Amino acid sequence: MSERIGIIMHGVTGRMGMNQHLIRSILAIRKDGGVVLSDGRRVQVDPILVGRNADKIERLAKAHGVERWTTDLNGALANPDDGIFFDAASTQLRASLLNQAIAAGKHVYCEKPVSDTLEDALAVCRAADAAGIKHGVVQDKLFLPGLMKMAMLRDSGFFGRLLSVRSEFGYWVFEGDWQPAQRPSWNYRKSDGGGIILDMLCHWRYVIDNLFGPVRSVMCHGATHIPRRWDEQGKPYDADADDAAYALFELDDGVVVQSNSSWTTRVRRDDLVTFHADGTDGSAVCGLFDCYIQPRQATPKPVWNPDERQPLNFFEHWQKVPDNFPPPNGFRTQWEMFLRHVLEEAPYRFTLWEGAKGVQLAELGLKSWAERRWVDVPALGI
Amino acid sequence: MSERIGIIMHGVTGRMGMNQHLIRSILAIRKDGGVVLSDGRRVQVDPILVGRNADKIERLAKAHGVERWTTDLNGALANPDDGIFFDAASTQLRASLLNQAIAAGKHVYCEKPVSDTLEDALAVCRAADAAGIKHGVVQDKLFLPGLMKMAMLRDSGFFGRLLSVRSEFGYWVFEGDWQPAQRPSWNYRKSDGGGIILDMLCHWRYVIDNLFGPVRSVMCHGATHIPRRWDEQGKPYDADADDAAYALFELDDGVVVQSNSSWTTRVRRDDLVTFHADGTDGSAVCGLFDCYIQPRQATPKPVWNPDERQPLNFFEHWQKVPDNFPPPNGFRTQWEMFLRHVLEEAPYRFTLWEGAKGVQLAELGLKSWAERRWVDVPALGI
Amino acid sequence: MSERIGIIMHGVTGRMGMNQHLIRSILAIRKDGGVVLSDGRRVQVDPILVGRNADKIERLAKAHGVERWTTDLNGALANPDDGIFFDAASTQLRASLLNQAIAAGKHVYCEKPVSDTLEDALAVCRAADAAGIKHGVVQDKLFLPGLMKMAMLRDSGFFGRLLSVRSEFGYWVFEGDWQPAQRPSWNYRKSDGGGIILDMLCHWRYVIDNLFGPVRSVMCHGATHIPRRWDEQGKPYDADADDAAYALFELDDGVVVQSNSSWTTRVRRDDLVTFHADGTDGSAVCGLFDCYIQPRQATPKPVWNPDERQPLNFFEHWQKVPDNFPPPNGFRTQWEMFLRHVLEEAPYRFTLWEGAKGVQLAELGLKSWAERRWVDVPALGI
Amino acid sequence: MSERIGIIMHGVTGRMGMNQHLIRSILAIRKDGGVVLSDGRRVQVDPILVGRNADKIERLAKAHGVERWTTDLNGALANPDDGIFFDAASTQLRASLLNQAIAAGKHVYCEKPVSDTLEDALAVCRAADAAGIKHGVVQDKLFLPGLMKMAMLRDSGFFGRLLSVRSEFGYWVFEGDWQPAQRPSWNYRKSDGGGIILDMLCHWRYVIDNLFGPVRSVMCHGATHIPRRWDEQGKPYDADADDAAYALFELDDGVVVQSNSSWTTRVRRDDLVTFHADGTDGSAVCGLFDCYIQPRQATPKPVWNPDERQPLNFFEHWQKVPDNFPPPNGFRTQWEMFLRHVLEEAPYRFTLWEGAKGVQLAELGLKSWAERRWVDVPALGI
Repeated sequence: MSERIGIIMHGVTGRMGMNQHLIRSILAIRKDGGVVLSDGRRVQVDPILVGRNADKIERLAKAHGVERWTTDLNGALANPDDGIFFDAASTQLRASLLNQAIAAGKHVYCEKPVSDTLEDALAVCRAADAAGIKHGVVQDKLFLPGLMKMAMLRDSGFFGRLLSVRSEFGYWVFEGDWQPAQRPSWNYRKSDGGGIILDMLCHWRYVIDNLFGPVRSVMCHGATHIPRRWDEQGKPYDADADDAAYALFELDDGVVVQSNSSWTTRVRRDDLVTFHADGTDGSAVCGLFDCYIQPRQATPKPVWNPDERQPLNFFEHWQKVPDNFPPPNGFRTQWEMFLRHVLEEAPYRFTLWEGAKGVQLAELGLKSWAERRWVDVPALGI
Repeated sequence: MSERIGIIMHGVTGRMGMNQHLIRSILAIRKDGGVVLSDGRRVQVDPILVGRNADKIERLAKAHGVERWTTDLNGALANPDDGIFFDAASTQLRASLLNQAIAAGKHVYCEKPVSDTLEDALAVCRAADAAGIKHGVVQDKLFLPGLMKMAMLRDSGFFGRLLSVRSEFGYWVFEGDWQPAQRPSWNYRKSDGGGIILDMLCHWRYVIDNLFGPVRSVMCHGATHIPRRWDEQGKPYDADADDAAYALFELDDGVVVQSNSSWTTRVRRDDLVTFHADGTDGSAVCGLFDCYIQPRQATPKPVWNPDERQPLNFFEHWQKVPDNFPPPNGFRTQWEMFLRHVLEEAPYRFTLWEGAKGVQLAELGLKSWAERRWVDVPALGI
Repeated sequence: MSERIGIIMHGVTGRMGMNQHLIRSILAIRKDGGVVLSDGRRVQVDPILVGRNADKIERLAKAHGVERWTTDLNGALANPDDGIFFDAASTQLRASLLNQAIAAGKHVYCEKPVSDTLEDALAVCRAADAAGIKHGVVQDKLFLPGLMKMAMLRDSGFFGRLLSVRSEFGYWVFEGDWQPAQRPSWNYRKSDGGGIILDMLCHWRYVIDNLFGPVRSVMCHGATHIPRRWDEQGKPYDADADDAAYALFELDDGVVVQSNSSWTTRVRRDDLVTFHADGTDGSAVCGLFDCYIQPRQATPKPVWNPDERQPLNFFEHWQKVPDNFPPPNGFRTQWEMFLRHVLEEAPYRFTLWEGAKGVQLAELGLKSWAERRWVDVPALGI
Repeated sequence: MSERIGIIMHGVTGRMGMNQHLIRSILAIRKDGGVVLSDGRRVQVDPILVGRNADKIERLAKAHGVERWTTDLNGALANPDDGIFFDAASTQLRASLLNQAIAAGKHVYCEKPVSDTLEDALAVCRAADAAGIKHGVVQDKLFLPGLMKMAMLRDSGFFGRLLSVRSEFGYWVFEGDWQPAQRPSWNYRKSDGGGIILDMLCHWRYVIDNLFGPVRSVMCHGATHIPRRWDEQGKPYDADADDAAYALFELDDGVVVQSNSSWTTRVRRDDLVTFHADGTDGSAVCGLFDCYIQPRQATPKPVWNPDERQPLNFFEHWQKVPDNFPPPNGFRTQWEMFLRHVLEEAPYRFTLWEGAKGVQLAELGLKSWAERRWVDVPALGI
């Protein structure tokens, strides 16, 4: 008789939730007969979709052959056969949903950020630990092929001693008047939880902590470069949330991470996000998929000459890291890690505490902006 | 009978002084019969070279057909027929040399920085004004073709409202052990006036002030990423000066300039220095010679997709600004501007006060680093 | 219970009528469950195909799963359940067909031109207004991606003040002797309603009015460059209709549109039709799909040198407008606009009056040609 | 003993006069030992430079080793040893200078236009004929390699029956504010003889007459698209002369030449001027140097499809005419033709009468613009 684990999936009608978590992760695992444990057993996954809009949730379930759906979250949580609760709905309700699920004895897994305040995030963490349940949070960028290559470089000793990192994230988000905007308008309103610092510093925390070293201090300057935008209905609104963040992070040993995040910049670089790491022995620049390296032996010695156009093409001294492994489906990989953590106590790093660290960095970034100074990042006391 | 102006040139045995100031500026003007005034008259330039090393200065003079040279600076300053004193020797002696020349009633023109402390720089400014002489300082980067194109874009209204600027300067300066270093070792020693903040923030001040708007506040974080280097004799030394500076500048209207300067980074960008300016109506990225633009109508709408390699090549949406004017010889242009300022009271912007502003920004950058906070930039009281 | 609207489709056996109106518009809408109204309701479309040739019409209907067809137009018009009459048959019968449908109380929608004389076109317009029915005419070129990009540029202020437009339409239509002609022979016979002025000036009217500004005056010179052609049966005939039109249009503020239309030219340009618009701040050249721009900051300064081959490649100073939105199905979009106009009084611009304007411009073009002078374009009195 | 012919050169201090007429023509012929006559004899040319500014004319003469120069035009004309008078100075003085030279019995050769009014031009023609002297006018564009290839195509019967010609001349002349203008400001002022119709229709007359057939009628519409410009001193001025001309010319047999001339268009074509000629058997497009052809056998049959991007690249169906002869020095060739005409009665086409035709076309173009109608071009009665 095959084993199963029931998973309550909340908020998977949105684009990311539906594509990445439902279709490409849980349903893909189900199609393959379940998650494979260390002893070779397969445990089948059995999702139940939960949402407020009955029509929408029913249509989603039917479209993808999911037998179980409901609008009754309490009822779903009360079912002892479903051991895991997952949430990918709005940030503002996340903490209370997680608390509810923890109280019902469920293991919990969720999208980032864990909450919109550190206080709430820590409360969830403590409640989860107290309840003895397993918990996890999505840290998807670590599973992008480009960032995995960066991790490989670090592990191989490529950099020698790491000196500094430049990170550029962003692109131009249209204002919405003469061309429709490509992001939802709530992103640009403070009152709706918008703002790029809150959105992106949660990511940068786990990316930096895991790739380059623990963040010790943060200096962040926010800006609202475009104060007026047009919403989904073509109506103008005051965009009062920060749409660009200029940050510096200090790591151990004086490593500096200079990090720009912006929805108001036009892209002239390798990808929508790039990390440029310089070490004593070599440098690397990665995007979402690719990574280019320059060992110190291939470093050119350019001449600064104001009288002649630079004869060197500085893109030519870099070498592409080959695709020695197929790009993983990062969201599915994370689900499988969490499922094995739940099912067989497999070691697991991306707990709610890690998620709370992201919220912490965002809060300290906002504090740094307000106080115009560097702010240290304390350890999260339990 | 043709007119002449005598110019005492001090410290032109170095690479920049010899090539840019002596050969390509003064001797080129001399070859053309002098500087042309607004009424069409030509005033011939008549240099006398001054230096400590008699042999070296004689050889330089003879090699380039300069009839007058001396090691006696005082004697040279005492000659009433030579109206201008120019200095391109070391920063540490500059202020006192300028003071000496001003006291002798000479007009003064010099390389940047004016001094290694703001106090000294201001003292020179005040002395120069009190003496009623004309004064000027080299601000060469403004005359680079790439930056001139950036100025043209700004003047033409290309940017709409300017939002932000990213500036990247630098390259890898070899440590000097397994490959010789390409910069002098004093650059990396505090006691010799080294350090990238002092060196480069002087430049960034006039570049930003003139291209993007007056600097109001500075946040600067320095680092000494490579603490041990090998000097011209192959001997190791403690490199205690900062070799990288991560700065933010705030201008009027919330414009943010994010600026990295580094001798410890490997270059993957269009040129050794690049300025990326984003405005509501368009963006531009310039290097020393070229400039690429993206008007908002040509701005792509990329999709963030963790599952597939980005299909857009973000270097393709940019258009090169054509070379509608031949690249100027910037150093000569500056000399001609200063000479006309001296000879016929032509309007002139780049006085010692402008030079002092550069020193001011470097000092405030160092202060910001020490105090780990933003520092405002006060107006320079006379 | 779901709503429906019956549509009498006349003359959809031809290539355009069948592909664009029947298959890609009405049947595509039917497959999607109907047209979506502003409140989210869907109204299903229910076509009945009408034609003279019973066999042909039955075969068409069956091939595409259309249940209803007939050769009895009067019978079809008598059915009160079918609210809309559509015609894509020959120009020469259009006006009387429209009058018939209007008299039967149908809303009417049709291909251009509305008629082959302005007088008839106006009579239809007045009858339609008097009957209080809704009416519309296809203006498909406005929905070509290239022209939509041109509209986007105009709306974004790209051009500054618009100065002039060059428009080139056409290609070589083979004579039909040694290679078969690719257009029907009636196009080249006056007595059959042929002629490029009548055909194309109807289009240019709405294109110019909507993209560049209302046409105020017209100067048109026609030509019959190829007076002898071979028809579908390989028989020679006198081609007495104009096969090329050289026109100028004057808009408000002195904007000039220079427009060539020709079936006797060989193409050396970006597309079969191109519009090149020059404004004070930038220029653009669009074809059916793509659009290239040159902001004034990227405008080169070429030198006219009779002694040397031009060193500039004048195709390189242009930048392709990115495809930020998927190309629309223009014919379907127009059907949906008209259906919503009929079903829920949605605002609608492309009425028969707009169609009459096209006929008016063609007539005035012919008059200008005959009288060898500019002719003003009066407002169409109701 | 070698023969010589003395040439009074007036107005060769300007760019074209100096480079093309003095240096690359007369001095080049002199360097080669003179012009070669049909019997192999060489006649040396012996220029005397005449100008108002003594300094300038002396410097020019010395720079190029010309022994004779003067500011005394009357004196020069009185010297019976100098048989030819040449003028390349301002249009406004040309007619009276020519009359003066004719009265002095000189053969005359000059730049176009012959005069700024047809009346004056005809008076000069008649005076020249009455005096029995030889006369000629520069028609340089006929000697451009691209146009010579076009003439070769016509002579070879390539076109079959010629149907139509499209001609595009022009480029963007900067306004002069944020970027300096590249043409003199008088071009844009009516009172100074500016205007593109007067400037270019003189050229188009001989180009069309000689390449495609005699011009029978003209329809011309002028425009002043940019009414405010900045002059050589950076001062704004009212630009009241026409800066764009949209013309149609009718030739024999209904051939139509559609011709745009503009200083307010951005170039997306093969060259600064292009002529696109369509004939029954083939088409050709030439620029200043190159020419591309498409015989009817290589003519593609494109499909108009609003649903898909055009699969054909319409630049690929053209073939470059090879450079079977080295590009001539057109100005020198014209000088040699005129010299042989003077020296040995060699046949010669480009008399003052031809020059007068250019002025005639410009005048009729202006008349057509004013009267908004086609204007016929009468034969020039003697």
